[in-house]
Formats: sequence, structure tokens, C-alpha cells
Amino acid sequence: MSSNRKIDLALEAKELAEGSARQTTRLSGVRAEEDTVFGLPLTRVDILDQRGEQALGKPRGTYLTMELPELPQEREEILRAARGVAAMLETLDCLPQTGLVLVVGLGNRQVTPDAVGPKTADALLVTRHLIQNLPDQFAGLRPVAALAPGVTGATGMESGELLAALVKRLNPVCLIAVDALAARRQERVCRTIQVADTGIVPGSGVGNARMALDQKTLGVPVIAVGVPTVVDAATLCLDLLEESGEKSFDPAIFRQEGAEWFVTPRTIDSQVHTLSRILGLGISTALHVDFSVEDVEKWTS
Amino acid sequence: MSSNRKIDLALEAKELAEGSARQTTRLSGVRAEEDTVFGLPLTRVDILDQRGEQALGKPRGTYLTMELPELPQEREEILRAARGVAAMLETLDCLPQTGLVLVVGLGNRQVTPDAVGPKTADALLVTRHLIQNLPDQFAGLRPVAALAPGVTGATGMESGELLAALVKRLNPVCLIAVDALAARRQERVCRTIQVADTGIVPGSGVGNARMALDQKTLGVPVIAVGVPTVVDAATLCLDLLEESGEKSFDPAIFRQEGAEWFVTPRTIDSQVHTLSRILGLGISTALHVDFSVEDVEKWTS
Amino acid sequence: MSSNRKIDLALEAKELAEGSARQTTRLSGVRAEEDTVFGLPLTRVDILDQRGEQALGKPRGTYLTMELPELPQEREEILRAARGVAAMLETLDCLPQTGLVLVVGLGNRQVTPDAVGPKTADALLVTRHLIQNLPDQFAGLRPVAALAPGVTGATGMESGELLAALVKRLNPVCLIAVDALAARRQERVCRTIQVADTGIVPGSGVGNARMALDQKTLGVPVIAVGVPTVVDAATLCLDLLEESGEKSFDPAIFRQEGAEWFVTPRTIDSQVHTLSRILGLGISTALHVDFSVEDVEKWTS
Amino acid sequence: MSSNRKIDLALEAKELAEGSARQTTRLSGVRAEEDTVFGLPLTRVDILDQRGEQALGKPRGTYLTMELPELPQEREEILRAARGVAAMLETLDCLPQTGLVLVVGLGNRQVTPDAVGPKTADALLVTRHLIQNLPDQFAGLRPVAALAPGVTGATGMESGELLAALVKRLNPVCLIAVDALAARRQERVCRTIQVADTGIVPGSGVGNARMALDQKTLGVPVIAVGVPTVVDAATLCLDLLEESGEKSFDPAIFRQEGAEWFVTPRTIDSQVHTLSRILGLGISTALHVDFSVEDVEKWTS
Repeated sequence: MSSNRKIDLALEAKELAEGSARQTTRLSGVRAEEDTVFGLPLTRVDILDQRGEQALGKPRGTYLTMELPELPQEREEILRAARGVAAMLETLDCLPQTGLVLVVGLGNRQVTPDAVGPKTADALLVTRHLIQNLPDQFAGLRPVAALAPGVTGATGMESGELLAALVKRLNPVCLIAVDALAARRQERVCRTIQVADTGIVPGSGVGNARMALDQKTLGVPVIAVGVPTVVDAATLCLDLLEESGEKSFDPAIFRQEGAEWFVTPRTIDSQVHTLSRILGLGISTALHVDFSVEDVEKWTS
Repeated sequence: MSSNRKIDLALEAKELAEGSARQTTRLSGVRAEEDTVFGLPLTRVDILDQRGEQALGKPRGTYLTMELPELPQEREEILRAARGVAAMLETLDCLPQTGLVLVVGLGNRQVTPDAVGPKTADALLVTRHLIQNLPDQFAGLRPVAALAPGVTGATGMESGELLAALVKRLNPVCLIAVDALAARRQERVCRTIQVADTGIVPGSGVGNARMALDQKTLGVPVIAVGVPTVVDAATLCLDLLEESGEKSFDPAIFRQEGAEWFVTPRTIDSQVHTLSRILGLGISTALHVDFSVEDVEKWTS
Repeated sequence: MSSNRKIDLALEAKELAEGSARQTTRLSGVRAEEDTVFGLPLTRVDILDQRGEQALGKPRGTYLTMELPELPQEREEILRAARGVAAMLETLDCLPQTGLVLVVGLGNRQVTPDAVGPKTADALLVTRHLIQNLPDQFAGLRPVAALAPGVTGATGMESGELLAALVKRLNPVCLIAVDALAARRQERVCRTIQVADTGIVPGSGVGNARMALDQKTLGVPVIAVGVPTVVDAATLCLDLLEESGEKSFDPAIFRQEGAEWFVTPRTIDSQVHTLSRILGLGISTALHVDFSVEDVEKWTS
Repeated sequence: MSSNRKIDLALEAKELAEGSARQTTRLSGVRAEEDTVFGLPLTRVDILDQRGEQALGKPRGTYLTMELPELPQEREEILRAARGVAAMLETLDCLPQTGLVLVVGLGNRQVTPDAVGPKTADALLVTRHLIQNLPDQFAGLRPVAALAPGVTGATGMESGELLAALVKRLNPVCLIAVDALAARRQERVCRTIQVADTGIVPGSGVGNARMALDQKTLGVPVIAVGVPTVVDAATLCLDLLEESGEKSFDPAIFRQEGAEWFVTPRTIDSQVHTLSRILGLGISTALHVDFSVEDVEKWTS
């Protein structure tokens, strides 16, 4: 049944796997630790080998998940969350301290819960052109480029094709891909930020086999940054019904004709706005190593 | 349990009542008929008396529901649906052929599934000011005014207060209130248009006791035009679980802290855009009795 | 010739009148003073009598104008400008310390340089509904209501008609009307905030005789808050040509068919966004007398 | 002085050159013809050699300009203008009848008069992915891809760099670049569509030396499609003052600090919307040679 579910968060894949393992919560090939970052709960899940990959249905690597008790409203809370994002990125070995980084905002700008990638790209401190045009003046900065390429239906291209071409031309040391995710638990929607060093398959889990964005396909490390903004409607129903012992629900009702349905909070517009700001600040702070989050704030507001 | 459900469509209230009546599908005080309008399925539900009001949980009056087999894409389909909207409005006795009509777009412009009211207001052929300023030139037109007042959280006023003041000043012969609804069945979302002569309670069913907009509170007939753009998440879960025999689900999880959740299709933005266009064309055609839908199209595109 | 010019700022009307007075810069019936507020230059122009009204082409009253050296980018600069707006409002005798205030955002949300009124309305701390529904919890707050009614072409009503009806119903102690203005000097665009106790004529100066919003028409004091976001193209050309001695330019070219033209900076979208935030913070701080601008910031971000 | 002017339209460059030539209106190396297309005035300017290049300040090639008497409102007028766009494109030898075409929407989606490129990209019938995924079903269609890359300030890349990489990967037979232009005459704004086989320099004329997009830099033919949406404020003033004999105006006032100013009609938002629709329909009709403009309308509305 789990193959019908869209599970983007490694944290939830682990919970699901542990749940079905019953007796023991110990999964082979998976290591999990809990911590905090700037006072916010942080979970680290390492998928170590093939057994771990099978147990969680995800590629091996490190998945960090930070949880926000509630959506930040005040500036100080927004900066704190951004510091947490920066700290997660800095933990990963595959992000060097210098060299061009390309940040990609995946998703559809015109579909609110899917706009977190493009809106994060808008909120970044982009510097590559400044350094190229005025090298003396911007000597201290790291080159950062950004792109929100749009979805395949609008471009006729897979993001992977476009990025492969661009990586070849720009030669970045690392690519960061930001995307909206689906959560299994409604309480995680717009409250969870996942950072992973494993790359990403855009639009994965919904049956569209897209080209993966990862070290293998692009030739550079790919860090995935994701925020769940919806609960997949079919997953929600499967979960509810399974808990109640019912087995006959056909999730196809929510997935016919390419017409995906989702469950989302009423105030999704303003929540996506705030989260994109947090991600923009956090990613920029991690990349510009001499800048504090307050410095980045000054230059991007 | 049904008091936990948000049932906006009279059609669905009838189905729910018939379902729980088991043996007999005949409800006292309710008359239902099926028909077509410009080839589209039309259901008419009349709530005749207090028994009918109790059975369906709605005030007495006439509820017309037109169903679209799919979201219109081509111009001809859009015009056909608009003709259907006009025909439903023309059926109601409370809409006179002449005299000022005030059309109100309820809901929140910044929340996509709630924006169908404001966007319909944008798409109307508004004429009152033209007739006042150039009476000779626009002699043949009926005066139409429009307003999208915004939600109480943004204005500090209930729509009912604002409209009571405005009706007193403008003296319209009729008020038409356009609002987004919730459907119980996902297949009705963005595919159903309900027109009723009973007025409306803005944001009803979710626990906010708002001032009703109806003949009693405003002193003029109030026609409600509604389109379901979401399934209420709690209603969906209650339905699924009840079918499976489970009773223990607490819908409060989706309604805590005023944070309503809903189930909506991925492409809600473009669907709301198309539906607002259909409603704008249909309402304008019903009001400007000498105009065809093509005439209205010319003046509002 | 000056009747062809659109002069919204009292400061510029004074400059224009002084310029044509040649010999002496002293205008009868006009008093002007220069000051600073939170370090920002402030000009106060009082039109004292009929001679002053004729000299400047504006009704008698007090006009305060604060100038920003550049568009605020950093949070501290935004808060400082907001404090300046609050201080200007607090200077005016017609704004009592308690009692309901209605804030109206005039203009067209869909035309960027005209959206500063509606966007300011969005950015206010609106409280009337909170106090009505939970009087104990919000005892300390002053009731504030807000409305962005939309332009006459979209509603069929003049703002004055709508507001007259609303004032009668709500009985506010004061009305604050926020609107976009035109400046004569390009360097004042998006850098100047004018506050006046004289009321306002929406869309004035461009030949549409609208109903004034003032104490006489509405029965309550009306404070006008305005920001120039454009230079009227005809005014710009008249000025340039007059300086060069040319007299034959016909400004009608920019005003035919109701198709107003304007001169505006490329980045008007983000400038209007920032200015609306400043006005929303400043007006809210002036109204909620126990709140600092930081308090307001917390509740409206 | 003309080097201070931003002259994007070949038609206006010709007028300016002819004007300053005084005696004779015949320019060496330039051929001009007038015609109509679907009843709309069409001017063809061919720059034949280096003398023509110098006279007009533009590279040699064919420039077609269609003029609309007024902004199309009704559907029939929109379709007629789109047919005109398609006819202009079909005139150019460098557009083959088959093979992948990449359409690029240049400009900034968030600045209304600059959004015509990105919005045209949104309005295209994009097919490359359909043909790749379901080759049998879409056998009759031509592959079309599209991209709105965003401006250099947001991406850190020049459009030319990105497109060079993409052209290398996708191997299109032709690239079509859509961009907003500046007109010298206010009556041409949003009323003129220029199609040229010469390629384009994004943001040219304002002092930013960008990498050209043309056959030489990209290795494939580049067709430029442009619509003037503004008058450059400095150009307008220079023209007005020159006519009046004044020479001392310094256009730098409108160009300081990278803060370009422009003159634009009040209703630019809706005009850009309509023009993008016309361009989207027209370009798609030219590319999908078996489709009429009505066929394209069905698939893109």
C-alpha cells in the first residue's frame, strides 16, 4: 500500500517503516539522531546502505529536518529559522566554502503551494553578475547564481535537461534545489524544513518519472531543500482508513486525469511567502560565509 | 455528526438527508426536479416549509444547481456555461427586469479558492456611473453596481454591516452575492454552480456566526450565487470514516486555531479564473436584458 | 497654464506660486515652516484664508510633507519613516486619541502606481471586529476599520457615496483617506509623504469632478495621506517647455480618451510595496496610542 | 544627441535619420515599403549594408512593423492581430517549417511594462515534452520549447549565457526572443509589433552592454519580436526640447543610479495582458503550421 503514498520527508518514511516493523523500531541501514539548532528540534536521518534505502524508499545520504513550533511571524523568529537553515546546510560536507553555487527554485510560480521554490529564488542574494562586472568592488563575495526554470508543462523541457546544460556552462561547485514537498501529517505542513545531500527527483512520487537531479546525472553535488506545503489527499485518506481497518479505498479518485488534489491550509499564500523568505535568508547566509543573516537581510529586503 | 460537516450545496444536503433516511428517499417539505439548461444538467430543489428546512439544514426557497461535465476551456463552452448562469438567474421571481442591482463579491482576493467572489465582481459589466454621468448616451442600460468588500479580518466590519449601509443609500431592487463554497464530493469542486433566492450567510458552517445577508436583514431580495472550490478537509475525513464504520475521528484537528484546512485541485488558480469569467458573463447577461452573452463579452474582455 | 497642471503636493503648489510671483516669495494667506521629524526634513504649509486658497489652488488647512532622502531598504529605515508618519498624524488636532477611525485606501489595486492606497489598507492593524467580538480581551485597543472600495469604473459608485453611507452607519470620529498622488518634480516621486487635515478629492486635477471627501460632505474630519508615485506626463512636458520658452505644447496629447499617461520609475512595484508598509505601520502606530511601531510590526507582519 | 536616445523601433530610427537628413528623405543602404496585413498597416524596413547600419544604428536585416489602430478589445480583433503576427513571422526566411523552435520571453515579470516577454512565454502552445513522451499521439505537432529566464539582477547570469548553453543542448532550428521595447512616439506604445530577423541585444540602448542574442553568438537564427510598452522619459524630453530649440537639457536626470524612468499609459497592466495573448497566439500559429489561430486558441485558453 505504501507505494500509493507520496512520502517526501525522510522523517515520515522512517516513521512509516518503523510503524510497520511493529516489534522493533530499529531499522537496519538507518541511523537517526535528535538534536536542536538555535532551539528548534532537529532530526538527522542517515541512510547508510541498500537495506536502509529499501526500508525508507529513498537514496542513501543525510537528511536533516528542522521543525518550527509555529509559523514565524515576528522578525526575530524569521531570522532564527533562517539561521537554522544555514546551520543545516553548513553541516553537509558537499557544500564547499568557496566557488560558484547555483540555486534552483523548482515548481510552479502560479500554483501557490508549489511556488516556494521560485519565491525562494527571488529572495536570494545573487552575486555572480556583480563579481563578473565589478570584480574589485565585490572581491569578498562568493558567486551565487539562481534560476526558477518553470515546470515542464510550461517549458517543454525537464528541469534536469536545462540544468545539465547550465551546469556544463557555469561549472558550479554545488547545486542547491529548492522544492515544495508533501507531508503525511497535517501538523508538519509549512512547519518543517528538510535539507538533504542526496539530490532530488522533481515531482517524484506522483507517477511522473522525471530525470533525477543528483551528482550522477549532473556531475556536481546536489543539495535538496524542501518544505511540505500540502498533504497529498490520497495519502491522507489511505492513512485515515488504514487506521480504521478499512482497506477498500481506491486513491485513484484523487489522481485521475493528471488532476492532483491536495490538502492545504487556508492561509497558504502568506505561509509560503514567509517560508520563502526564511529559505532565501538561510541559504544566502550559508553561501556568503562572511555574512550574518542580518547582513543578508539588509541586501535582500 | 452532520453538524460537524460543512454542507453548502442544497443538492448535497438533500443527498445526505436521503441517505440517512434509509428506507425512503422522499423528504417531507422538499421538492426536487431534474432538467437541463443549454444541454447542461440542472437540479432544482425547493425547500417548501419548516420540515424541509430541518431536513436539509437550510432556509426555505429555491436552489438551482447546474453541473459542468468538465471545466470549460474553449470560448464556446465558456459562453454556454454563462448562458446557463443567466438562465438560472432569470428563473427566479425576485430578480426584476429593471432597476439598480448591486452585485457583491464575497471572500478573500488573496486566498485563491476564496477569490471567486472578488474576481467575479471584477468581470462584471458595471454601468451605474455611466448612466449617472451620461444619461442620454446610456439610456438603454440597466444600472449595475458592484463591490468586493474584503473579509472581516481585513476590514473590521461584517459584510452585512457594510451592505446594510450601502443598500440604504443606493436603494437597489435586488442584491446578488457571489461566494466560494465547499462541496462534500470532490467531483463537484469547480464543476457546480448554485443559484438560490434565499440569501446567504458569509463563511457559514465553520463556526463563525456572521450576520446573514437576506431580505430580512437587508430589506431587499438577496440572490446567492456560489461555486464550490474546495472540499472541507474535516468533512472529507468524516465521510470516509463513516463509510468504513469508524466513529472516533475528531474533526477538530483540521479546525484548530482558526486554521481551516481544505482539499483543492492543483490547478485551482486557473479554474477560479475561468469560473469567475463564466459568472461575470452570466450575471451581466441576466441583468442587461437586451444584451446577449456575446454583447457582454465585447464590453468586459 | 497652471490649470493644465496636476499639482497634488501643497509644497509644489507653493513653489509654483512663489515662482510666478517673481519679486517676492512671500505669499499672502500662506505660512510655511521647515523642521525635521526623526531626522527627516518636514515642511509645514498652512493655508490660512481665501487669499492662500487662491494662491495655491487648494483648500485652507494644514499640509505636512516629510521627505525621504532615498527609498528605505533596511528595517530600521522603514521603522523610522513610519515613526515620522505617525508623528505627522499626531500633530493634527482633528485626530482624537480614542474612538473608531475608518481608514480608506483609495485607488486601483491593479494599476501599480495607483495601488498604494489599497495596499496600505492591507497593511493596517484592523481591530474593530476583535473588540466587538471579544471586548474583554481587546479592551485596551482602539477600534480601527478599513476599506479599499475600488475605483468608480469598477464599482459604479463614487468613493464619496460609499463612504457617506458607511460613515453614517459606523459613526467614526475621524476618517483617514490614503491615495497615490502625482508630483511635479521627478525627485519627489516615492520619496515624499504628505499628510493634510483638509480632506481629499479622489482623482482630482485630471478633469474628473468627483465628490470631495471632507468634513462638509461626510460630517467627520477627513485626514488625507498621500504619496506621489508618478509625474503627470503632461505636467512634466509643460514644465520643460516653459523653462525653454516654448508655449505651444498641447497637453491634450497625454490626456485623450481618458487615457492618462504618467512617468514612473522602473522599480515602482517594489517601491509601492515598501511605501505601503511604511504608511500601514505609521498610521497604525498613530491610531493605537499605546503601541510603538515595533508593537504594530509584530501584529501586522 | 541621438546617442542619448533609446530607439528600439527600426521604423523610428528611419524617421529620425530621415528627419536629420533634411533635404532628402532617401537613405543609402535602406529600403522601406508599406503594405497591409489582414487590413493592418505594415512597414518593412530592410537594412541592406553598412551605410544602412550606420544611418539607422541597427544591424542589417529585415524589420517588419505592424500597427494597431487601437488596443484590440474584442476576440475577433485579438485573433486578427495574432494572424498578423503569424504572417510577419512566416515572411522571414530564417524560420523553417519544421524542427524544434525555442521561444524566449525576456524581461522582468514583476515590472509590468517589462513583463510582455515572460507573459508571452506563458501564453504559448508548448509541445516538446508532449512529443517526447507520447510521440505517436502528437506526431503531427512541431516541437516548441519556451523559457522566461528572468533578468540578470535576479539570476546572476546574462540571458545570452543561459541561452548559449540551452541551444547547445536542445539544438533548435531557430530561436524567437520576445521583449518589451521603448518607443519614441507615445502613440506607438502598445500599438506596434516589430518582428526582425536580426537578433536582439537585451536591455540595449540604456548603457548596459549585454551579450547579443543572434546567429553569431548562438549559432542559430534569432528572430526578435518586440512591443514598445513605454516611452523612455529622457528621449521624450530630448525630443520635446529639441523641437522647441532648447539644447541644454541633461537626460542624466532620468538615468541616475541605474534608476530608469519611463512614460507609460495608466492601463498598462491590461494592455500588456492583451498584447501577450496576441503574441502567444500569433507565434504559436506561425510555428504549428497546420493550426489556425482558432485551433491554437482552443489549446491555450
